[in-house]
Amino acid sequence: MHTQTTQIPGYTYGEVATSPVSEADLDLLKQTVLLSEEDVLYLQMAGRVLKDQTEDILDVWYGFVGSHPYLAQYFGKKDQLNDAYLASVRKRFGQWIMDTCFRSYDQQWLNYQHEIGLRHLVKKNQTDGVDAVPIIHFRYLVTFIVPITATIKPFLARKGNSVGEVENMYNAWFKAITLTVALWCYPYVKEGTF
Amino acid sequence: MHTQTTQIPGYTYGEVATSPVSEADLDLLKQTVLLSEEDVLYLQMAGRVLKDQTEDILDVWYGFVGSHPYLAQYFGKKDQLNDAYLASVRKRFGQWIMDTCFRSYDQQWLNYQHEIGLRHLVKKNQTDGVDAVPIIHFRYLVTFIVPITATIKPFLARKGNSVGEVENMYNAWFKAITLTVALWCYPYVKEGTF
Repeated sequence: MHTQTTQIPGYTYGEVATSPVSEADLDLLKQTVLLSEEDVLYLQMAGRVLKDQTEDILDVWYGFVGSHPYLAQYFGKKDQLNDAYLASVRKRFGQWIMDTCFRSYDQQWLNYQHEIGLRHLVKKNQTDGVDAVPIIHFRYLVTFIVPITATIKPFLARKGNSVGEVENMYNAWFKAITLTVALWCYPYVKEGTF
Repeated sequence: MHTQTTQIPGYTYGEVATSPVSEADLDLLKQTVLLSEEDVLYLQMAGRVLKDQTEDILDVWYGFVGSHPYLAQYFGKKDQLNDAYLASVRKRFGQWIMDTCFRSYDQQWLNYQHEIGLRHLVKKNQTDGVDAVPIIHFRYLVTFIVPITATIKPFLARKGNSVGEVENMYNAWFKAITLTVALWCYPYVKEGTF
């Protein structure tokens, strides 16, 4: 499942610095988003359902960003989109869908979520060596929980699973996305308040 | 609907400082969480459904906090809960459910969301004049999107509305909560990055 990952430029899972968030912290965050062992199984089911649909999902997400200039501007500079940048991020974004479903949520996973947070702020543009707006504003990390969650449901329903299974996969996805985004926010938050 | 509000100590809707977030900013955030005019109508429907259930909802939410010491500790100091503090916040929390459903999301609403954000951080404890832990940590603002959203569904389904109406009310609530929490985060976020 992760065999192709070395082919994705800038995808450095397992090779990044340690997150300031510990596995003990994570345990409490998982309790807060109600993420159970059963949810982990439904995330894996979601992963199997979404595996061959990631390009279609990315079409929807990129379509959403592309049709809203205030979002698209983060992928460029002075209203000029950087197509190479969009394409590089897209590959990692697709891998992230699979990672969200299949990876163990352990210290290595925490480390990579922190890296992704940094790549939205102080390390933005570095990974792909591009000249684009310097940061993604915080407001769109949290608010993106909705489109990233809501748009996934039709894809979860497309492989013949029961209504109950789709609902359970959807709820597990919602929990995982909210947890993930909370972690991505760390670099934005004032010292000592996370 | 808001006639009882002056009876809630510390509830100062319409009497607080201007938020740094403008109505133009809000318009983009509403687009990002996919909050449509139809959602506003479903929020109002949710408000009518939830109106006489707020105490039961608060029982669920307080039960969740109370059964997790790492959450309950924010309502006290050195593991001693402050019951008067819990009771004061509860009244405003109930009013907040109604405000989320019925208020116009305008500058006054933005101002009050900013005030609520401040009351989780630099102004925590001031409103109720209590001696408790000094801040709510950021991590629990974002992760609370899940319990505050997921637990509302059974209450939305309790008044005989169709499955479709319950689903639409639930989705509108999810969008509203995510938008609201994003605004509450403002005081936690580093200068210039919101």
